Amino acid sequence: MKIYCNQKALMSCINTVIKASSTRTSLPILECILINANSNYVTLTTNNLDLGIESTFEADVITNGLIALEAKLLSEIIKKMPNEEIEINLLENNYVSIASGKSKFTIVARTGEDFPALPKVQVQKGYTIPRAALKDMINQTIFSVASDESRPAFMGEMFHIKDNTFNLVSVDGFRISYRQAEIVNEFGEIESIVPAKALAEIARILPHDDGDVIMYFDNRHVFFDIENTKIVSRLLEGEFLKYSQMFTPDYDTQIIVNCKELLMCIERASVISREGKKHPICLEINTEQMIIKSNTDFGTSIEELNADIQGKNLTIAFNPRYLMDALKAIEDDEIMINFLSIIEPCIIQPKNGNAYKYLILPIRVNA
Amino acid sequence: MKIYCNQKALMSCINTVIKASSTRTSLPILECILINANSNYVTLTTNNLDLGIESTFEADVITNGLIALEAKLLSEIIKKMPNEEIEINLLENNYVSIASGKSKFTIVARTGEDFPALPKVQVQKGYTIPRAALKDMINQTIFSVASDESRPAFMGEMFHIKDNTFNLVSVDGFRISYRQAEIVNEFGEIESIVPAKALAEIARILPHDDGDVIMYFDNRHVFFDIENTKIVSRLLEGEFLKYSQMFTPDYDTQIIVNCKELLMCIERASVISREGKKHPICLEINTEQMIIKSNTDFGTSIEELNADIQGKNLTIAFNPRYLMDALKAIEDDEIMINFLSIIEPCIIQPKNGNAYKYLILPIRVNA
Repeated sequence: MKIYCNQKALMSCINTVIKASSTRTSLPILECILINANSNYVTLTTNNLDLGIESTFEADVITNGLIALEAKLLSEIIKKMPNEEIEINLLENNYVSIASGKSKFTIVARTGEDFPALPKVQVQKGYTIPRAALKDMINQTIFSVASDESRPAFMGEMFHIKDNTFNLVSVDGFRISYRQAEIVNEFGEIESIVPAKALAEIARILPHDDGDVIMYFDNRHVFFDIENTKIVSRLLEGEFLKYSQMFTPDYDTQIIVNCKELLMCIERASVISREGKKHPICLEINTEQMIIKSNTDFGTSIEELNADIQGKNLTIAFNPRYLMDALKAIEDDEIMINFLSIIEPCIIQPKNGNAYKYLILPIRVNA
Repeated sequence: MKIYCNQKALMSCINTVIKASSTRTSLPILECILINANSNYVTLTTNNLDLGIESTFEADVITNGLIALEAKLLSEIIKKMPNEEIEINLLENNYVSIASGKSKFTIVARTGEDFPALPKVQVQKGYTIPRAALKDMINQTIFSVASDESRPAFMGEMFHIKDNTFNLVSVDGFRISYRQAEIVNEFGEIESIVPAKALAEIARILPHDDGDVIMYFDNRHVFFDIENTKIVSRLLEGEFLKYSQMFTPDYDTQIIVNCKELLMCIERASVISREGKKHPICLEINTEQMIIKSNTDFGTSIEELNADIQGKNLTIAFNPRYLMDALKAIEDDEIMINFLSIIEPCIIQPKNGNAYKYLILPIRVNA
């Protein structure tokens, strides 16, 4: 194998794939990036057996070849290379030279044939969605994926495609985050749980541009096709929450409030809760206004906030972080929050439509 | 005590003093910021018994007073305050209210009288130096202060004022970093060791402007006067290195080389050394050029660099981090490096003058 390529193109491609390389594994080949030089293209592939990424760029391929190089070392060498043009050359005994300008590295390669192939997902029945939409939807829901392993199915997000609606849902036992978008569906219902680690990578890699991403599902894997980059993730098994039953339209108290103002009030009130400690903050909703109170060993905080309030007076307490996570994910100026009682969840949603819903369980506090 | 003040002025003053407040101490008052409101000024003071900082700003003082508030809590509250104007008001039972707009905090204060006073240093015999110069000199030498406690005197920097020269020196057993500036000296020689922790704070606080800082020394303390901000640090005791004897002008090999190019070569060569492991890099100096080599389990790297070379050929090895630290601190385009032998230190210095000297011990390697 011998190639000449542009430093920026190679580095960009390494950055795309590197997060799916393993660190600390008993299979050293999984710590590598597979480099496949063929005709005028170089394809880089990583595979940690849960997630695989491959990405292709144009290069001047003198001799075709297939080698695997340790991902972190390759990344650090290419990042520091002095010139725009880089030469990668397979020498004898599996040594590879990487040269640019007056700088030359010689490192050990692994045999490319030992690299585990990415799972094959049949490329038919593709669901197409704008890249920017999928990126935003993941970022606006991923924070409430469960981190403990007691319910493995909750460690991913539900991709639920039904009729012409794509629903993306995460749940951690205390809250549900829900985003919805229209999708052209010609192939029937999909219910697949994609691991959060894969989604974090997909959201990172997806460009916020005008292009589309095509999603293909089979029983065990999901495949995302983003032009030059392909991502394959295994799916999670297990029972997901029947989330749609949770979103009741009923309410006893309803407020319409400025999202950013409410967020800032809660951020301030949570200052005296301190990190780590889940000290509840209290919302006092009466006909005139909303008061946000926090009371800890450090002292008390009181915030007054104007809101458009319907229904019964209510005093209810929440983990401030859960409220802040949801409010930060919302782009609307004004939001609607429905409450039923001090022991039932609130639902944060748009004034009109169903683009998002954030359900949060309250904390019971002594009056 | 009751004051009205500007949020930005108060926050800036908190940021100046907060690093000298203690964290995790058996004396909780040391975790506080002392607030002294008097006439039209508010002075904030912190004191961890090694280092004390006080800083003053203008405010609308309705009632004079002296209270101590927990530093981290005060900082977080003020940082998040919604309005420009903040009211701080001492209530009954040592409660303090902090209010701005529709936001109001009530927190517990400590009695200001319990706060330990800063050490008094006689404000005469002041040595004046431009703030920007002192800031740069500290930043360009502090990296080679010793971090282990076996030689306490090496955990600070020597402030050596003699004749009309101010010498700032750090040493960690493997290298010496030295910076020099002119100073007006009317009071005789000073040899004082200032702890690195204090110097890091001073370098952080010093503005890079046209003003001066005045330094006062006594046997136990140094006092830095930067207009509205005063810093007092205890001095370190013990024997410092007789550094001036180490800087011999003799050499057997001398190179003049571009500083940034050499730095980049060493940064690249150290890529295959990996963090944490002190793998030496080898400089091969012959009459024609300089070659920088690194050879580890990961592979080899070779860099060629043009240099103006005088004297004998030499192959010598160094810890790459020590070379990089020194080269990063130098602003000159071209530098001179003198070598004596493979077991004696090299000295990096300007082509002309004595503004800085970096002495670095080599590593013995098997040929």
